[in-house]
Amino acid sequence: MSSTVGKVIRCKAAVAWEAAKPLSIEEVEVAPPQANEVRLRILFTSLCHTDVYFWEAKGQTPLFPRIFGHEAGGHCKSEESNMCDLLRINTDRGVMLNDGKSRFSINGKPIYHFVGGSTFSEYTVCHIGSVAKINPAAPLDKVCILSCGISTGLGAALNVAKPKKGHTVAVFGLGAVGLAAAEGARLSGASRIIGVDLNPSRFNEAKKFGVTEFVNPKDHDKPVQQVIIEMTDGGVDRSIECTGNVRAMISAFECVHDGWGVAVLVGVPGKDDEFKTHPMNLLNERTLKGTFFGNYKPRTDLPGVVEKYMNKVKANMHVGGSAAM
Amino acid sequence: MSSTVGKVIRCKAAVAWEAAKPLSIEEVEVAPPQANEVRLRILFTSLCHTDVYFWEAKGQTPLFPRIFGHEAGGHCKSEESNMCDLLRINTDRGVMLNDGKSRFSINGKPIYHFVGGSTFSEYTVCHIGSVAKINPAAPLDKVCILSCGISTGLGAALNVAKPKKGHTVAVFGLGAVGLAAAEGARLSGASRIIGVDLNPSRFNEAKKFGVTEFVNPKDHDKPVQQVIIEMTDGGVDRSIECTGNVRAMISAFECVHDGWGVAVLVGVPGKDDEFKTHPMNLLNERTLKGTFFGNYKPRTDLPGVVEKYMNKVKANMHVGGSAAM
Repeated sequence: MSSTVGKVIRCKAAVAWEAAKPLSIEEVEVAPPQANEVRLRILFTSLCHTDVYFWEAKGQTPLFPRIFGHEAGGHCKSEESNMCDLLRINTDRGVMLNDGKSRFSINGKPIYHFVGGSTFSEYTVCHIGSVAKINPAAPLDKVCILSCGISTGLGAALNVAKPKKGHTVAVFGLGAVGLAAAEGARLSGASRIIGVDLNPSRFNEAKKFGVTEFVNPKDHDKPVQQVIIEMTDGGVDRSIECTGNVRAMISAFECVHDGWGVAVLVGVPGKDDEFKTHPMNLLNERTLKGTFFGNYKPRTDLPGVVEKYMNKVKANMHVGGSAAM
Repeated sequence: MSSTVGKVIRCKAAVAWEAAKPLSIEEVEVAPPQANEVRLRILFTSLCHTDVYFWEAKGQTPLFPRIFGHEAGGHCKSEESNMCDLLRINTDRGVMLNDGKSRFSINGKPIYHFVGGSTFSEYTVCHIGSVAKINPAAPLDKVCILSCGISTGLGAALNVAKPKKGHTVAVFGLGAVGLAAAEGARLSGASRIIGVDLNPSRFNEAKKFGVTEFVNPKDHDKPVQQVIIEMTDGGVDRSIECTGNVRAMISAFECVHDGWGVAVLVGVPGKDDEFKTHPMNLLNERTLKGTFFGNYKPRTDLPGVVEKYMNKVKANMHVGGSAAM
């Protein structure tokens, strides 16, 4: 690698030339890193629905050509938030902070970055705040998914919803994020974990992550929040919404018990969505909050999440199964 | 009083015969208390907007004739909530728990109770869980207002919004509840307290309760949340909504800083109101919650609030000025 210091690297990358058009494998030029930047060789990357979402560019600011794929977003010392002013997720920014330019190009034409990652490339350049040093023994083909989806769901439960021992938790959406949220609820000691999904085939897999009951909104004539309130004699203690569908968000909020229930929103909503509820649902001492990346600080907290995975037998984690999700 | 044990007491009460019609001073019969009930002589009572709200009965279930006026609502051992299953505020219930009947009557015709209080009467009957024993030296003409409005605002700040030292707090509505919320923010060490009200004459009084800046939404062409975001370089750390106006609730939520901001709703909304916001405002790690009675448990916590008032010089409380509000 020393021979590439200060030089352009030519490598393959999956380039999105236009919204919703198939990615094209191209040879790209990757410029050398500048101050506070590192150039990384990408061995494994995972695909997140957020990549798809911004590739579709339905309503969001389109920024093309672009290399998608992402890992982490920021790094700061705040005790209150993981949303760093400098490095927070900014989907509209496709350039580096140092000079406002991209490090990727094809024949001199710039190709934009994506949320500090652009990991759909053999080499990428990141701000050092977007890079975490993890256990070198960790299998990169597995732990890459910890850098977004799994941590997002796990942290939404462990860091934000914080269910107590014996609590009942509803998880909306049983994709990778929702399964990780269920796992977090299980690790917290929740005694009932109600999985909500339109696809009944997901329930069997979900059982491995702690889901004890399954509700398919299609099976009921009444709103799913009403079904859950009846199942739980007043509502769940915590709910975690992992679909991005605004109707599911409203259901997830309205199914928590008044007096103490907490609903956590994780899924990325559509541009024109509107969250609507009667304000008395709030006044009745329910709490509604959202979270990015499970409130983990990528650079400082991700190594610990990797350790949790490495100790999976001890912690009874099932992240290893995520490759099949 | 021993002569009245087990006997009906006849006394004066302000009876609401119909929605929105003037209260009428009538002689009522007050039946003796049953198990777990006490009959109380009312020396002072305060008028809360919630009394007016249910007297107007715009959309709420009308329950007449009724004696309005209220103090507290519940008593339980939960660590999570002050919303007791047994004694929680239930505006639709106008009778006692023991036998499902009212203790008030006029010529045998029952007159309904209101939220466990019905203090607009010389004598009333309450469940013992709705009664708190306070410092006998406390001036009842002053501390009666602690049993609803002042504690609601003060507790919304001290127990729910919990501003940290140096935080910026916005308070929407500078009536009694809002002024108490400002006082709570001040006691918490907030360095900037922004009062929002349509009535500029309230600002001078509000200064005594810690309000440092004033925003009148009428003075601006843009939404008040935008004004506050610009004043505070991104939003306030905490906001407390004390008007019950759903537009103010939305503004109070949308003016908190992303990443850590917490908005607390205190005002009672209208029956057909809808809280609407873009779900990304939540996903950006804002928290939205509501509270009744400032999360205080009336029976256990109210004596302490009275002590706070009694030590007002030490604590620099201004509740004594509330009589003028």
